[in-house]
Amino acid sequence: MKKVTVKCPATVANLVCGFDILGMALKEPFDIMTLKLIDEPRILITNKDDYNLPTEPEKNVAGVVLLSIMEKMNKGIGFEVEIEKHIKPGSGLGSSAASAAGAAVAANFLLDSVFSNDELVQFAMNGEKLASGVKHADNITPCILGGVTLIRSIHPLDIVKLNAPDLFVTVVHPQIEVKTSDARQILRKEVLLKNAIKQWGNIAGLVAGFEKGDTDLIGRSLEDVIIEPVRSILIPGFDVIKSKSKEAGALGGGISGSGPSIFMLSKEAHTASLVETIMKETFSQLGIEYKTYITTIQKSGVELIS
Amino acid sequence: MKKVTVKCPATVANLVCGFDILGMALKEPFDIMTLKLIDEPRILITNKDDYNLPTEPEKNVAGVVLLSIMEKMNKGIGFEVEIEKHIKPGSGLGSSAASAAGAAVAANFLLDSVFSNDELVQFAMNGEKLASGVKHADNITPCILGGVTLIRSIHPLDIVKLNAPDLFVTVVHPQIEVKTSDARQILRKEVLLKNAIKQWGNIAGLVAGFEKGDTDLIGRSLEDVIIEPVRSILIPGFDVIKSKSKEAGALGGGISGSGPSIFMLSKEAHTASLVETIMKETFSQLGIEYKTYITTIQKSGVELIS
Repeated sequence: MKKVTVKCPATVANLVCGFDILGMALKEPFDIMTLKLIDEPRILITNKDDYNLPTEPEKNVAGVVLLSIMEKMNKGIGFEVEIEKHIKPGSGLGSSAASAAGAAVAANFLLDSVFSNDELVQFAMNGEKLASGVKHADNITPCILGGVTLIRSIHPLDIVKLNAPDLFVTVVHPQIEVKTSDARQILRKEVLLKNAIKQWGNIAGLVAGFEKGDTDLIGRSLEDVIIEPVRSILIPGFDVIKSKSKEAGALGGGISGSGPSIFMLSKEAHTASLVETIMKETFSQLGIEYKTYITTIQKSGVELIS
Repeated sequence: MKKVTVKCPATVANLVCGFDILGMALKEPFDIMTLKLIDEPRILITNKDDYNLPTEPEKNVAGVVLLSIMEKMNKGIGFEVEIEKHIKPGSGLGSSAASAAGAAVAANFLLDSVFSNDELVQFAMNGEKLASGVKHADNITPCILGGVTLIRSIHPLDIVKLNAPDLFVTVVHPQIEVKTSDARQILRKEVLLKNAIKQWGNIAGLVAGFEKGDTDLIGRSLEDVIIEPVRSILIPGFDVIKSKSKEAGALGGGISGSGPSIFMLSKEAHTASLVETIMKETFSQLGIEYKTYITTIQKSGVELIS
């Protein structure tokens, strides 16, 4: 029986100014997923972690992705799935995307790579639809392609892999709950044209910075005048961490996806470590449990490890 | 007495989706400007064309730029200026920017390059303020730097030169009047967030396309869901020209600046020529006088020719 094990990276969606279009894969944390191809049309899911996620295929992120693949293949195949989740659900680090993208990529390995990356993104979006109600691709795309990715358009799907710089990423996940759907609902439906212009100036600067490998331009462009001012209200300590991290030499950063995790980019390991200390001190003082990571940008996406 | 003659390129602001932030210099048309440095604090302007532009320094675009430079230098110098304008005022091809940028760069040549590009953009913006009431830099920046340019931010000024592809540009200037101030007033002050997201996806795609030299990505990204649907109403024939040009193989294009000129990008000279025919036929049928250009992207900005 064919069997593969894959590593599914955590991802940071939005990258501050690139709401709904930009994303980045992280070296850590990551999930481990094992898929076995079986010759019966059924899915058996086993969780090898303590998150008690549903195992009924229709209610499981990986499950619905695999169901859509089985439907497409239209022959008597199924999957046995073992998920070892390390990316905490609700962290804002693409936990559901890791399950969705991991399932799609692992299944594709088992099916002799019959699907293109665009098709894998489409399949995996079914998982995001289950998780958050919206077929968004800003975590899935970097999870599948690795590095930094752009979704120019979702209808039709047009994804572009950008050059990813060698930067350190410090992440803190404060153990508070921010639901993606809530974080989306508090946004205004209309924005001022003058703010939209500032935002697209920054997005253009950020993309140019990535492509040119100009880390200072990346830093100057990590500014969000539309989403962050609203969403950061949901994350205690956000403003302090951001301003102190930049004072300590970080290029910049912001909310990871819809939060509550916060990420900061740095050129030097030493700065990334200073930023971690700032994050730890801030949440300790606030009496909020947290977990931190010092990592880098994961240049490849979901990887076969055996 | 020191004297220089410079060539000042026409420019296309906005580049469809990059309202207020992107711009591109053209090989044709261009103005010719001659500046003489004199040791008296006065400015003498002579027009060597038929546009009857004002020659009082305070009312002339080049004049106000030179006045701001004289004020900054704070010593007894002045300029004699001859302007041979070929970029028709009100064409949407950066006519005032060519005068403003040309004056700033030519003066800087005469002053042994004492000013940086950022400073030259700042001086030249005084000319745009006189011409349109707004200190915008989206024509000035490509006119000074050449190629394709990004203004990430205007306060503080942050300009980035992007990689410019080898593309053909077909331009038509229909002889109708669209005032920059009118074209700005008809825009809504608020935009839908979902449209803003589409727009910044396209801007990100366009910048990535320029940097990667991916002309198909450039083509797919030349889409404007915010400004063009409103402004194109002021330009008869716009929709016909755009759709027929794309059918003929053009990558895409749109309104140049605030119009009324229209530009289209093509990979091949042959396509650029087909597009010109479409433009000519459309305005002939509408009974509107026009002028067309088939040109390329001018990679350098204002140039010293003697």
